[in-house]
Amino acid sequence: MTRGFVGKILKVDLTTKNITTEPIEEEVAKKYLGGKGYAVYLLYQYIKQYELKGISPQNIDPLGKENVLIFATGPGTGVPRFPSSGRHHVMALKAPLTGSIGSGNAGGEWGAFLKFSGFDGIVIEGVSDAPVYLALIDGKAEIRDAGELWGKNTMDTTRALMNSVGGKNTSVACIGPAGENLIPMAVIMNDEYRAAGRAGLGAVMGSKRLKAIIVSGDQKVPVAKSEEFRKVADRCLDAIKNNSVTGEGLPTYGTAVLVNVINTAGAFPYKNWQTGIMPDAEDISGETLTKEYLVRKRACWGCTIGCGRISSVKSGPFQILNAEGPEYETIWSLGSACGINGFAAIVKAHHLCNELGLDPISLGSTIAAAMELNEKGYIPEEHLQGWVLEFGNAAVIVEAAWRTAYKIGFGKHLALGSRKLCSLYGHPDFSMAVKGLEMPAYDPRGIKGMGLGYATSNRGGCHLTGYTVAPEIVGIPEKIDPLTTEDKARWVKLFQDFASVINSTVNCQFASFALGAKDYAELLSAVTGWDLSEGEVLKIGERIYNLERVIMSRLGFDGKDDTLPPRLLREPMPEGPAKWHIVDLEKMKREYYTLRGWANGVPTPEKLEELEIEL
Amino acid sequence: MTRGFVGKILKVDLTTKNITTEPIEEEVAKKYLGGKGYAVYLLYQYIKQYELKGISPQNIDPLGKENVLIFATGPGTGVPRFPSSGRHHVMALKAPLTGSIGSGNAGGEWGAFLKFSGFDGIVIEGVSDAPVYLALIDGKAEIRDAGELWGKNTMDTTRALMNSVGGKNTSVACIGPAGENLIPMAVIMNDEYRAAGRAGLGAVMGSKRLKAIIVSGDQKVPVAKSEEFRKVADRCLDAIKNNSVTGEGLPTYGTAVLVNVINTAGAFPYKNWQTGIMPDAEDISGETLTKEYLVRKRACWGCTIGCGRISSVKSGPFQILNAEGPEYETIWSLGSACGINGFAAIVKAHHLCNELGLDPISLGSTIAAAMELNEKGYIPEEHLQGWVLEFGNAAVIVEAAWRTAYKIGFGKHLALGSRKLCSLYGHPDFSMAVKGLEMPAYDPRGIKGMGLGYATSNRGGCHLTGYTVAPEIVGIPEKIDPLTTEDKARWVKLFQDFASVINSTVNCQFASFALGAKDYAELLSAVTGWDLSEGEVLKIGERIYNLERVIMSRLGFDGKDDTLPPRLLREPMPEGPAKWHIVDLEKMKREYYTLRGWANGVPTPEKLEELEIEL
Repeated sequence: MTRGFVGKILKVDLTTKNITTEPIEEEVAKKYLGGKGYAVYLLYQYIKQYELKGISPQNIDPLGKENVLIFATGPGTGVPRFPSSGRHHVMALKAPLTGSIGSGNAGGEWGAFLKFSGFDGIVIEGVSDAPVYLALIDGKAEIRDAGELWGKNTMDTTRALMNSVGGKNTSVACIGPAGENLIPMAVIMNDEYRAAGRAGLGAVMGSKRLKAIIVSGDQKVPVAKSEEFRKVADRCLDAIKNNSVTGEGLPTYGTAVLVNVINTAGAFPYKNWQTGIMPDAEDISGETLTKEYLVRKRACWGCTIGCGRISSVKSGPFQILNAEGPEYETIWSLGSACGINGFAAIVKAHHLCNELGLDPISLGSTIAAAMELNEKGYIPEEHLQGWVLEFGNAAVIVEAAWRTAYKIGFGKHLALGSRKLCSLYGHPDFSMAVKGLEMPAYDPRGIKGMGLGYATSNRGGCHLTGYTVAPEIVGIPEKIDPLTTEDKARWVKLFQDFASVINSTVNCQFASFALGAKDYAELLSAVTGWDLSEGEVLKIGERIYNLERVIMSRLGFDGKDDTLPPRLLREPMPEGPAKWHIVDLEKMKREYYTLRGWANGVPTPEKLEELEIEL
Repeated sequence: MTRGFVGKILKVDLTTKNITTEPIEEEVAKKYLGGKGYAVYLLYQYIKQYELKGISPQNIDPLGKENVLIFATGPGTGVPRFPSSGRHHVMALKAPLTGSIGSGNAGGEWGAFLKFSGFDGIVIEGVSDAPVYLALIDGKAEIRDAGELWGKNTMDTTRALMNSVGGKNTSVACIGPAGENLIPMAVIMNDEYRAAGRAGLGAVMGSKRLKAIIVSGDQKVPVAKSEEFRKVADRCLDAIKNNSVTGEGLPTYGTAVLVNVINTAGAFPYKNWQTGIMPDAEDISGETLTKEYLVRKRACWGCTIGCGRISSVKSGPFQILNAEGPEYETIWSLGSACGINGFAAIVKAHHLCNELGLDPISLGSTIAAAMELNEKGYIPEEHLQGWVLEFGNAAVIVEAAWRTAYKIGFGKHLALGSRKLCSLYGHPDFSMAVKGLEMPAYDPRGIKGMGLGYATSNRGGCHLTGYTVAPEIVGIPEKIDPLTTEDKARWVKLFQDFASVINSTVNCQFASFALGAKDYAELLSAVTGWDLSEGEVLKIGERIYNLERVIMSRLGFDGKDDTLPPRLLREPMPEGPAKWHIVDLEKMKREYYTLRGWANGVPTPEKLEELEIEL
């Protein structure tokens, strides 16, 4: 064994209750690393199988028995001193909200502890007829009855399972009522405070009647060249400590540090993206959070950054003690997007999202779209059942969490997500989503690279696959002009490829504020025993992104889906640094496709051959 | 035909899906009238059947296939000009919250329209394997699939069914999520704003997977002596109009008129009955409701009183437009009992109770008990999951509705009801309930008759089977001293018997502020064609109450269950007109049992013979 994998993947067929294990294939791992990359490779094998059986991937029901759900770790996961490596990646062949590939990455402890339990990944097939959970304990795996857990919130589910198993290195990933109720913005929560959050992975889990996965154990994660690794890791951890973002901004203010930064850049979407400046952003900034709501900080397993927060709203109608977060994206989606300028309701609504298992980005954005629809007179009053759906109404976001998770009253419409909701009311343009996935908190009219990133992200409107905010706003690795489209195609491709490496490693993207591809090459070489160069690492990333794109094309997506909501393409930003700007997407897209070697958004045979992708 | 019944009862076996009709037996009707009386008679036949089969009634699961649910109208129901006769009565062999007989009475339109649909009552047996609803339309009955309705709130359920049937005289009774989730304080809502509310009748319906019953039709309700009836009815309607309570207090302020009245009497339980005076009761009085929240008034079918309210909370965190109520009991339970002095949260929480299908009396009282437990340090902090469960915290009652209906977080404990909740935390004495049913808004230390009424009510802590507030506080039919125990046994027996007549007629108890047993005798004689005297009518009431008591004894109840929470028996009222008073229950109970002809709370054979009750 010359690599850092424990070496096996658990395969569970919930229809037949058959459990098997498969070794990680080293040749595949060398091409796709682990985590997201290995999962994409496995998902592609399912695509091939289904096509051989005459099942078109386009016809697969995201909530049906053919969908496949994968939990994956990578060579870095759970390795002591590997920077911020307590994470795991979750993928589904098809996401309920979008119909695109499902993909999510979560922190916490679960990823590391999965590895300590003796497994590197889990592949879930089929559908159970009754609620079950999986127990992976010290190398053994069991499907167990979850009848008593069904209906419970994520906290009660987690605590009940933790109490039943006990011991150190024990962790639970689970769904809440939203996942059980197949809400297409349901998340998979782990450790009560982290989520694989986007496009309805929780609903996929719910459709399989898989309530939870508990992992526990103390199996060692091997490191091929331990002395070399220690040296590289120490250097990387130092770099993280000395970096202004990872050593100062994130530890001090959490991800909320971005509120003032992005608002100052005029790219903090306000009231369903009608402008990019929130007048009272200071009220929901990281600085205010720290001063008035922060109880303490919190770090994921193996993380020296510690961006997590615990906050309390000590009095008033939105009172809640020791709630997790809120994160920047949540503060924006439940706050600025809905015109809400107070932390109390945001912290409370976010807590409910965690409890019930909802994605706060999609929830907040969908509420914001509904608010705009309502204010413009497109929602019949009787649909609201006494609710006052107006920008700035803080009570709405709190109540919306309950209503959406259970499809109660107007919640049944919010539960559709913004794309279907806006179509239902005849104004699809109000949905600020790409491929049906609501975009996060960066207006690309003010950060052009993000526009190309959103448009070409495989899973839909996502900031994590091409986070050019780093160079465009923060100046990492170098400061570039956020308002030009120049050279953005190259940056977006680079960040997408690099993010694919990080999500396959699996560790935290925040580490990459301080670490470059060269650092990852050295870290991964030491852990796996392979000899990886910076270029090889980025090529692996490119390969993963391309194979994922191949799956997207089999699911029916092509260049026409690589687009942005009309508001960003046609309505100039009304104020601030990006005043008069729209996103000239077509220009960037052309350059990007050329750089990618894609035709109409689909990799050409030549590109696939170059990347050694075998179809 | 010489009687005012249309004449048939629908019998539905949800296990076999068998539907039959049975004629109303005139001999039975002469002894038990209709409504509650006829239902009690039918339930007793089930008791006999089960005992013959060797099934002990004590072992019947309230949520199992042996429980029987009955919806009943009476000879007055739906008769034009019969005062306030749009009501119906619901009974179950066993109620989930208490294990006692289940009994509830609701206004609205459903009762009258059930009769117009061609049926006088519905008996539900068995359990459906999948969600269904019943459609009773123009004399025909069908069991229909309710898969699409399951999970919906009471408004969406009602509106979806109303739209599917259309036509006039159409009405829906249904359960919300609380009933589906078998919460033992789930109600059956009808017409979106009225409920058969107590002890979990909604959970019985949920356990049978019966989501709703829609009734529609325009079949005539016969009146035996129409000219005579018109004369009597006109006189009665005049009396109602000219009565200070039914002609002025209730129409002007709704049931909330009682807040100031009962608080002034020092019998308005505050903070889980720690005292009988709420310092800021004016803030939640009928006068304040009318001035600041009332949108419009509303009356049930055939009612000239019109005590219903529509209220709006126009801004703030508890905003809700055009919500029903709130009623006096709700204002007390969600307000004073929990130490909450503002209408906003009360109206909002009450609206959620209606939406989700919860009994606000039991919910508020259970929250109040939990608040006292928590303030005294008996609830471990981690059970609260960040919740601040303190008297006066308005946000709690709103959130509690969601949490209880879905058993989320601390809601799983609230969903137990106060008796089990307080036992769970080792202090059963904090549960202000009789036979497990939370008492309503009258402290019997200040209104002694109510103490005996609560204690001896068959269904548990109930104000509607012996409402001696009328003479003790309001002075109807004559003013008596609320603080003495003297003669209260006679009053309670009289009111219990009379209420049994009213609930079997079926019309509204509020009419009895203006009408006496003699009026009922005349009204019923004219409608049915029988010749009933005042004494005969009250004897029918006594018969019903006794047969119900016989069923109670078969369910395992006896004199030991005819009691009150220790707080009322031992803790003197600390202030106000009833200062130093406790309830001397034993004295009143002895007199009452003697008057009743009961031994240890069970009717003697002699009494049964006298009442012509055949076992």
